This record gives sequence, C-alpha cells and structure tokens, in this order.
Amino acid sequence: MKPTAVHLPLEEARRLVSGAIVGSPAHGGPAAEEADLFRARGRVLAGPVLAPENVPAFCRSTVDGYAVTAADTFGASEGAPALLELAGRVPAGRPADIRLGPGSCAAVATGAMLPEGADAVVMVEHTGEAGADLVEVRRPVAPGENVVRPGEDVAAGSEVLRAGRRLTSFDLGLLAALGLTRVVVRPRPRVAVLPTGDEVVPPEAGPLAPGQVRDCVSAPLAGLVSSDGGDPVVGAVVPDDPTALLAALERACAEADLVFLVGGSSVGARDHTADVLDRLGPPGVLLHGLALKPGKPTVFGVCGPRRVPVFGLPGHPVSALVVYRVLGRLAVRLAGGEEPGAVRPWPPEPTLRARLAEAVPSDQGREEYVCVALQSEHDGSDRPVRRGPAGAPAAGQSGGHLPLAVPVPGKSGLVSTLSRADGLVRLPVGCRGLEAGTVVEVTLLD
Amino acid sequence: MKPTAVHLPLEEARRLVSGAIVGSPAHGGPAAEEADLFRARGRVLAGPVLAPENVPAFCRSTVDGYAVTAADTFGASEGAPALLELAGRVPAGRPADIRLGPGSCAAVATGAMLPEGADAVVMVEHTGEAGADLVEVRRPVAPGENVVRPGEDVAAGSEVLRAGRRLTSFDLGLLAALGLTRVVVRPRPRVAVLPTGDEVVPPEAGPLAPGQVRDCVSAPLAGLVSSDGGDPVVGAVVPDDPTALLAALERACAEADLVFLVGGSSVGARDHTADVLDRLGPPGVLLHGLALKPGKPTVFGVCGPRRVPVFGLPGHPVSALVVYRVLGRLAVRLAGGEEPGAVRPWPPEPTLRARLAEAVPSDQGREEYVCVALQSEHDGSDRPVRRGPAGAPAAGQSGGHLPLAVPVPGKSGLVSTLSRADGLVRLPVGCRGLEAGTVVEVTLLD
Repeated sequence: MKPTAVHLPLEEARRLVSGAIVGSPAHGGPAAEEADLFRARGRVLAGPVLAPENVPAFCRSTVDGYAVTAADTFGASEGAPALLELAGRVPAGRPADIRLGPGSCAAVATGAMLPEGADAVVMVEHTGEAGADLVEVRRPVAPGENVVRPGEDVAAGSEVLRAGRRLTSFDLGLLAALGLTRVVVRPRPRVAVLPTGDEVVPPEAGPLAPGQVRDCVSAPLAGLVSSDGGDPVVGAVVPDDPTALLAALERACAEADLVFLVGGSSVGARDHTADVLDRLGPPGVLLHGLALKPGKPTVFGVCGPRRVPVFGLPGHPVSALVVYRVLGRLAVRLAGGEEPGAVRPWPPEPTLRARLAEAVPSDQGREEYVCVALQSEHDGSDRPVRRGPAGAPAAGQSGGHLPLAVPVPGKSGLVSTLSRADGLVRLPVGCRGLEAGTVVEVTLLD
Repeated sequence: MKPTAVHLPLEEARRLVSGAIVGSPAHGGPAAEEADLFRARGRVLAGPVLAPENVPAFCRSTVDGYAVTAADTFGASEGAPALLELAGRVPAGRPADIRLGPGSCAAVATGAMLPEGADAVVMVEHTGEAGADLVEVRRPVAPGENVVRPGEDVAAGSEVLRAGRRLTSFDLGLLAALGLTRVVVRPRPRVAVLPTGDEVVPPEAGPLAPGQVRDCVSAPLAGLVSSDGGDPVVGAVVPDDPTALLAALERACAEADLVFLVGGSSVGARDHTADVLDRLGPPGVLLHGLALKPGKPTVFGVCGPRRVPVFGLPGHPVSALVVYRVLGRLAVRLAGGEEPGAVRPWPPEPTLRARLAEAVPSDQGREEYVCVALQSEHDGSDRPVRRGPAGAPAAGQSGGHLPLAVPVPGKSGLVSTLSRADGLVRLPVGCRGLEAGTVVEVTLLD
C-alpha cells in the first residue's frame, strides 16, 4: 500500500529514512579505499582496527623519579627512609641498559624505559640525595606503581576501533600511536543535488530576466553535504516538467548514491516529484509530507534498479536547509557507511543556551524550527554577541550571562533570513509556544 | 616585566592569546584570495559583501492565487464577493506581459511576477471561479499583501555580510541568491606543528627501538587545524635540545602564521621551550602555565621579526588536544582573520546533555576537563548510545532519556583514553566536584 500524503512525525521519518539506507549498497557495500592518517578525520572505517603492536612497547615510567624494586621500599617513611644505591640514569627515548640488583635504583624521566629488575617508580618528590650514589626513598611504592607495562595501554591484537566509526581527532591520535598511517575507509558517497523550477537559474547566470530567481539552495546544500562526508555533484536546473524531471532523475540514480531534488515553488512541482519517484520505483515514494515547520512538503523515496534514496526538498531556502539538517544529514552520513549505533551521539550539532527575547507562537501539530539571531543580553541593539576571546567555553554555558535569541521575522522564502539567522530553536510537537525569557537550546548554523 | 610561571586562569589566557593575534599581520593583514562559492563554506570574508542586485528583482507573489489591485477587493466578503475579470495567467519564471486595468485580475503561482497594475495577491483559497473569465474574491487584501516588492528581501547596495565573518551554509545561500559565485576571502593561515622529544618518532617509523614512542599528537592536531580553517604543516620531530629547538622554531616562524610546538614529556623540555621562545622574542613568553587540568604546562609567546604566535603544548596527547580545543582553536580562527566579535558564538562546539554515571572529584584551583564515554542509560554495558536514526535531535535534548556520561579512567598520558572518550565535561574553577547523577553538558569530540 502506498503511503498517502499524511504528515509523518519527524521521529518516524528518521526511522523510515535510515531503514531505507541501512542495508543499501551505499551503506553496507564492500567498497573501501585507503586514506592517509593526516587526512582521515571524518572518514568512516571500512572494517575494525586491530592494534598491530603494544602501547607502550616497553615498561614505561609515568613520572620523573627513581626506578626501583618495589620490595626494597616497603616500610620506608620520612623518619626511616630506605637507602638505595644509584645504579645509573635512563634518558627518555633510549634503551635501559642497566640491570637493577637488590637495593639499587635508576633515575628515570617521565616516559623513560624501566631497567630490568625494576617494577615501580618512586616520584622524585618523595626522594632525596643521600650522598654521591645514594638515594633516600621516603615512601613505599607498590609493584607497578607509576609504571605502564608493555601493552597495558593498548594490547597488540585488540580491537581498538569498530567498523563504521567516523574518525574523530582523538581516533587519529590512537592510530598514530599504533603506527597506522594508512586507514581503510569507506568511499565518500556521491550525492547528486538537482535544483528544479521554471523560474530558477544557476547562481552564475548573468542579469536576471523578469520572473527569474537564482538557485540559492544548491551551494549551501553542497557545502553541508561535503562536511557530512559526501561528495556533492550539482546538476543543471531541471524545468517543472515531468519528462525532463524523469530523465534527470534517471541519470542521477544511475550515478549517485543519494539524490536531493530541490523543488521549484510553483504549483504542482511537488506532485511532479512524487509521480516521477513512483514511476522510477519500486518502492518509489515512501514519505510524502512531514509534520515539520518549515518542511511540510518534503518527499522521500527509493528509486531505480540501484535503489537509490531520493529526497524532494522544498524550494524555499530556509525550509530546504532545515529539512537537510533534521533528515538529510542523517541520510548522507548513513550512505557514507557510518553505523547508526556509532558510539558518538549523532549527528553532533553545536548548540548554545540562550534566552528568548520574544514569545514564539507554536503550530502545535508539527515539530517546528524557528530561526533566531543571537544578541548580547546587555544591549538591545544589533550588536553581535561577543563571545570569542572572552566568552565562556561551550561546556560552561550554565553561567548567568546568556545571549538573547531573537526570532527572525519573515517567511522561509526570504533569502535575507539566511544571513540574519544564527541558529534554530526547536519547538516539539504539542509545544504551546514559548514565552519571552524562556531559556532555549539554540542549534547553531554552520 | 616577564610573567613568571604562575598558572593563568583560562579566561585571562584567552584574552591574552586573542590580544596577541588580533592586530597581527596574520589576523588583520590585507592578504585576500578568491574562493568559489561552492567551496567557500568555513572561509572568512576579507571585506564586507554588498548586494549587487535587488532580491527579488521583480514584484513577486508569495502564494498561489490572483494578482489584483487591492482597492478592487475592499469590502469583499463571503456574502458579497468582488467579481474580477480574469485578464490572464503568469507562469513562474516568465515576464508578466499583462497589464491589469480596473476590475481585472491575473492568476499567479507562488514565485511568479506580478503584472503591471497589480499591488497584492488574493490566496486561491479565498476565491472561486464565477464563469469562464470571472473570478470571485471573498476577502479583501491590503496593498502589498502576499507580495514581495523588488529589493524588499535584499536591497541592491546594502551590506549583507560583514568582513571577518566565517561563512556558514546559510551565508552561501544568500551569496548564491545575489549571483556572487566568487567570494573574496582571507587566505588560510599556515600553521606549523612541531613535535618534539628525544623519545618521539614519527607515526610512520618502522618497528620501535626500546624507549621510543610514536608521535600521536601531530595527526589529530593537523586534522583539527584543517577543520578550523588552517593549513597545517607538520615538521620533523625536534630533539630535546635547545639548539635544535631554536633552529626549528626560527624556521617555523619564518614560514608560518602560527606555531604549535608539542612538548616532549621528559624533564626540562618545557623549560627549553620557554627559554627558546624568549631568545626569539621580543616579547617572547607571554604565558607559562595555565590553571587548567589537563594542560598546566602550556606555554604561549610571540616570536621573531614577524611576531608569530607560538604555543608550547604538553606532550601528553589528551592534554595537548584539550589545550588545543580550549585555546589553540581560538588562535587558529583568529589567525584566519575571523572577527572575535563575529555574530555567531564562537567557536561553536557540539554539546549534548548527559547524566554523570559516577561522581567526579575536582581540583578546585583549576578549570578541569574530564574525558567521558557516553552510554545508553538503559544498560550498564559498553553498548553504544543509539541516537542516530531514532534519537532525539540535538536541539531537543531536554527530554527524559539522557545518555550516561561515564568518566574514563586513566591518565592523560594513555593513548587508549583517546578512543574511549566521546566527549569532555568541564568543571569550572571553584567547582567542588560533581555528584553521580548530575546533568552535565558534554562537549563532543570531533
């Protein structure tokens, strides 16, 4: 049974979209390529990573001090220090070519290798020199204290990163520590962006003829797709004509892993999209209408022999970009092979707490995103919020000085809204609007 | 007077660092280059952007309906509709080559051009057909209703974006709408990364000799620098020797706009850094020690004839990356020409609310960042938090099901901490620790 044009709640739409993509060749296929470690941040692991070597490779001191046999320090105190013979010194980065006998010790720097016979390190603060080659130890240490044993940090052969993980900066550090400078990753998904509309011309077109507008969705969409790990390809503008749309979509579905049609705003364009998706099915249209404001006329389906997921986004720029953020981003990331259950909450979006400057009415039946500009609380002007150098860090936003979130007036069709908005405030389904002064989480635009 | 090794509060350190960079050639210099619109996201505008044309370029309808002379609809109601003669139809994207006389109207689609003589649009819902060429209008409209006038959205000549703004996806939409497909931006700052330490070898080195460790900071640092708009250049590992360090730093300061030295962990390496920075001054060292955990031994100065800002980061990977996030990122962004008072709060960092699984003790004298792993609240296992497809969106985290933030045990020197951590929890100065169950903002690693 084909879904009718009901307005699907966003959460259900997310499940539907991820169900359509997980298991598709784009998500789970065998394709893989090598990436250089220094350029691998944000790429998705094609398989699990096993540690090829121990970290550390040797028994390492975590402090500056003296390597000892722990038993030699038992009972040592300020009043009755243990006296140990200084057998030598192990500099960082060099083999420890000393062997400790009973009652002896070796000076070690943080990171240095422990000599044979040593099993702990006394911090230099708890020692003193008691002669040319004698060291006073004023506190006992347990075996293993202030020491990292070979493989204790990472054991050779252990799985350190899972398949489907999108690599973070910290992950690159781990791979570097293990000497893994080539990483096997999933290819970037090819993402076609198809602007449509009789009135739409590409941004680079010359002077506009009466009635024409420039495509202002493809460029931001391509930028977002890139940052979500996709490889965007922007097509020529498709007129509002079913035959042209069918041809363009057939071509896109043959080449891309994911397609974003950006709808013209003229009457009937949305129906064309749904009809053409169905003609390219099965299954064709899976979603026609979202309980989302802006973004209601969104269409989603799966088309062609390669079963390529296709979005029909609204033509209004703010609407299209909101739908991309709440739904399209998920699709791009999944098509890139990322595991839906990856450890990191996902997609991570920068947010900031702010205080609403004005009341926001609500359309209770739909999840709603309201564009807001951020202002300093201390003046009502358009002066920017100064948070850079002196601002509190993101994790510490609970402090008293919250910026103001000022709802941006104007419809989603206005392009000036694009430059006035700093972020989005979400009103969940059933929310009866928000009063002025309410503290809200603002999802920052990027 | 030279600062001594006091531990500067982070907020003061931010002011100091941004003061040292704002006004430097890297931040405020005249250098500029052109970027293609489709690749300009994240770049910094070298100058203000003025609108070269009106948006819209013509008088546009915002709804599907009938273009009218508003005065012809005054007094119209359900009971007494106004009857207007249908003069024609204006499709989207075409010139309106009709002229409305009194008592006539034209059918227009959303986005279509209004014909001459029309000053408002009646929504199709408030009309009916009353014969072949007669339209019934059942509600009055005011002049300008459902219409966007030429330049009403963006007026030609107005400043739409300020110099120093880092371009977001929404900004690209605005530029596209204005036909600005080449953008004049600041060049990416060249950022030198210099690993140091007698025990450190590059990640690609073959099997390790006893006592050696691989450089695991440069790769993640380079990845973060790139994503903050910098152009990272990783140098060869510098031994813990003042002469070698001086030579390497002199070279870096001649070529780069910003330098990150990554300290070896051996005794005295940090003092080398400060001494060498002073020898390359004035002003040399400006900061020696941060009231930050981890990250205490951080050094910052300005060196050489080009007055290049130089950081000495701790050698421990987690420490180095925490200092980068709270201080280094600011420097890279400022060196890229971004205005400290840019409208967007900055740097935007993805955060997520979570509930602490265990109590976290605090070192009250310093701002502290604790690595945490995120887990689903519904099982105590290591199972990842499933938030992708079915998860609540970032802006709606106030819902009941918060993930658990589990502090990652282990010292910052362990590389395994790198892959266990999903984010950082901040404990401000004076915080007496956090109890289990506390709701915290987790800054997500990326």
